[in-house]
Amino acid sequence: MFQGQTPVFPRIFGHEAGGIVESVGEGVTDLQPGDHVLPVFTGECGECHHCHSEESNMCDLLRINTDRGVMINDGQSRFSINGKPIYHFVGTSTFSEYTVVHVGCVAKINPAAPLDKVCILSCGISTGLGATLNVAKPKKGQSVAVFGLGAVGLAAVEGARIAGASRIIGVDLNPSRFTEAKKFGCTEFVNPKDYDKPVQQVIADMTGGGVDRSLECTGSIQAMISAFECVHDGWGVAVLVGVPNKDDEFKTHPMNLLNERTLKGTFFGNYKPRTDLPRVVEQYMNKELDLQLEKFITHSIPFSEINKAFDYMLKGDSLRCIIRMED
Amino acid sequence: MFQGQTPVFPRIFGHEAGGIVESVGEGVTDLQPGDHVLPVFTGECGECHHCHSEESNMCDLLRINTDRGVMINDGQSRFSINGKPIYHFVGTSTFSEYTVVHVGCVAKINPAAPLDKVCILSCGISTGLGATLNVAKPKKGQSVAVFGLGAVGLAAVEGARIAGASRIIGVDLNPSRFTEAKKFGCTEFVNPKDYDKPVQQVIADMTGGGVDRSLECTGSIQAMISAFECVHDGWGVAVLVGVPNKDDEFKTHPMNLLNERTLKGTFFGNYKPRTDLPRVVEQYMNKELDLQLEKFITHSIPFSEINKAFDYMLKGDSLRCIIRMED
Repeated sequence: MFQGQTPVFPRIFGHEAGGIVESVGEGVTDLQPGDHVLPVFTGECGECHHCHSEESNMCDLLRINTDRGVMINDGQSRFSINGKPIYHFVGTSTFSEYTVVHVGCVAKINPAAPLDKVCILSCGISTGLGATLNVAKPKKGQSVAVFGLGAVGLAAVEGARIAGASRIIGVDLNPSRFTEAKKFGCTEFVNPKDYDKPVQQVIADMTGGGVDRSLECTGSIQAMISAFECVHDGWGVAVLVGVPNKDDEFKTHPMNLLNERTLKGTFFGNYKPRTDLPRVVEQYMNKELDLQLEKFITHSIPFSEINKAFDYMLKGDSLRCIIRMED
Repeated sequence: MFQGQTPVFPRIFGHEAGGIVESVGEGVTDLQPGDHVLPVFTGECGECHHCHSEESNMCDLLRINTDRGVMINDGQSRFSINGKPIYHFVGTSTFSEYTVVHVGCVAKINPAAPLDKVCILSCGISTGLGATLNVAKPKKGQSVAVFGLGAVGLAAVEGARIAGASRIIGVDLNPSRFTEAKKFGCTEFVNPKDYDKPVQQVIADMTGGGVDRSLECTGSIQAMISAFECVHDGWGVAVLVGVPNKDDEFKTHPMNLLNERTLKGTFFGNYKPRTDLPRVVEQYMNKELDLQLEKFITHSIPFSEINKAFDYMLKGDSLRCIIRMED
C-alpha cells in the first residue's frame, strides 16, 4: 500500500478477518488459545514513539509493509508447500484456515462478538468510520461531503450519520452508488460529470460557501484537491483517506489554507489496532455507537467459492463479502 | 493583503495602533468617548456565520479589504484635503492624530493598559503569537520550528516559549537574526543556505523524524512547503502564516498528508478582534501569559520623524518602532 504493490509470490492474500487463537509462540503473554481476535494489516508494538503518542497509530515497528512477505522477528515465512516458502501478505494472510500473525497485529476482542460481522472492522470500515469520527470530527448539525462511495466512503458516510451531520453529500462518478449510499445516511448526491464547473464550486454553491467537513475516499489526486477546496473557509476540515499514486502531486493555492482551512490525512482511521478496535467492537455490541455493520455485508460464500467474491468486487456488486471457512 | 496591493491614492496609511475614542457616530452603543481601543485591520461584525463560529475570525462584512478606501456604510471617505478625498487604508488609517474607524474594527481594552506597548497587539504580534497559541498549539515539551525570524516569526517563537516548547528551531536566510531570536526563546538556528539538502530534511535529521509543530512566517512558497514537510508523521502540525504571492502554488506529495500530518493556515492568529484582543491585553497586564511585549519595541520616535521608522524597517534594524503622536 505505502510502498506500492511489489509482486512477492507465491503468497497468501487476505487481510480483513476475524478468528480464534489456536496457539501462541514463545514470549506471547497478551493472548492465549481460544481468544477471539481481529488480525490487522498494520500493528501496534506499544513501545515506539508513535505508539506512545496519543495521536498517531503509525507504529514504527509494525506499520504496514506490502513488500515484506515474512515474519519480522526472523525474516522467515511460516507457510510452505512441498518444501518451498509461501510468503505472507501485510502480516495477516487471512485467506487461509490457519495463519501466523505477529502479536502486535492482533486485536483481542469480546468473545461474544459475532466474528462474521465484526471481522469487517479490521480494515476498510474502520478506515472510513475513523476518518470521520476520529479525524474530521463533524459537530452535530454540520455538513459533510464524502468523495467516493465505495465501502470506505460509505463507512465515512456512516460515521457522519452517527456524528449527527445535517447534510451528507456523496460525490461519485457512478450515479447508481447514490441508491446504496442513501441507506448509510447520504442526503444528497453530486456527480462531477453533470456539471461544467469544478465540483468544489458546485458544493460551495450548494452550501453557502462550502461544507464543514470533507473526506476523500477514492485515491484520485483530483478528488483530493476538490475535497480540500470544497470546505468552508474559516473552519472547514478536509481529510484524505484514499491512497494516491506514487507520482501524484497535491496542488492548491496557499491562500486556500491561509483562509483557515485545515487539511489532514489519516491511516486506518487513526485507530490504534490493539488499543482502539476492542472498544469499537464493544460500542457496536452495546449500541453505544449506532454502527450498522450488517449494511456493509452484501454477500456470504464458502471459502471453496472465493473467486466469486473477486467477481462481485470487480463488478461493483458487493460491499463486503464474507468468506466462510467453516463450510 | 488578500486582494493584492491595488494603489488607491492619496490615502492615509498605518494600521497598528492604540488610541482613545474621541466621539462615536449614530447608533454606536458599544463605545463611548474616552474608551481606550486598539483599531484592527480586519473586523468582527458579530452577526455573520464567521463571527458566530467558534473557530473563525474571518468576518464576512469587515474582513480585510486592501482595495477599499472608504467607510463601508456609505462608500465615502472621512478624510479630505482642499475638498478632495483622501482614502482610508484597511479600515484603520492610523498614521494620523485622528481617524475614523468602523465600530466592528475596534477592540475596547482596559484603560489601565499602556497604549504605547499594547498597540503592537493590533496586528503582527498577535498574528504570530496566536498562530502558535491558538492554531499550532504545541504541548509542553514539544519541538517547534519557526520559518522567518521577523517580528511575526519572533512572536510565533514567543508563543512557543510561553507554551513550554522544549526546542524552538528558528529558520532564516539571515544568520544575524538568531542573536535577536534567542532573546525570544529560540534554542537552535538553521540557515537553509548552509546545507546542500532541503531544510525539511535537515530538521528531520535534527529531531528524529521531524518537529512536532512548525510555523511559516515568511510568505515564501518554498518555505511553506518546507515548513509542512518538516513536521513529524503521525502527529505533526504545520501552520501557514505568511501571505503568499498571487500565483504561488503549494505542492506536496499527498502521502505526506496521509502519513497523518496536518496543514493549516491562520489569519490574524485566529484572534477575533473584539472578542479576544481585550483578553490578551488583560493576560499581558496580569502576567497570566508571560508575554514580553517590550522586547518587540526597538525604537520610539515622534510622528514628525515617521520616515525614520521606514528606514529602520527597510534596513532590518527594527522590530517595532513606536510613533508618538503626542510630541
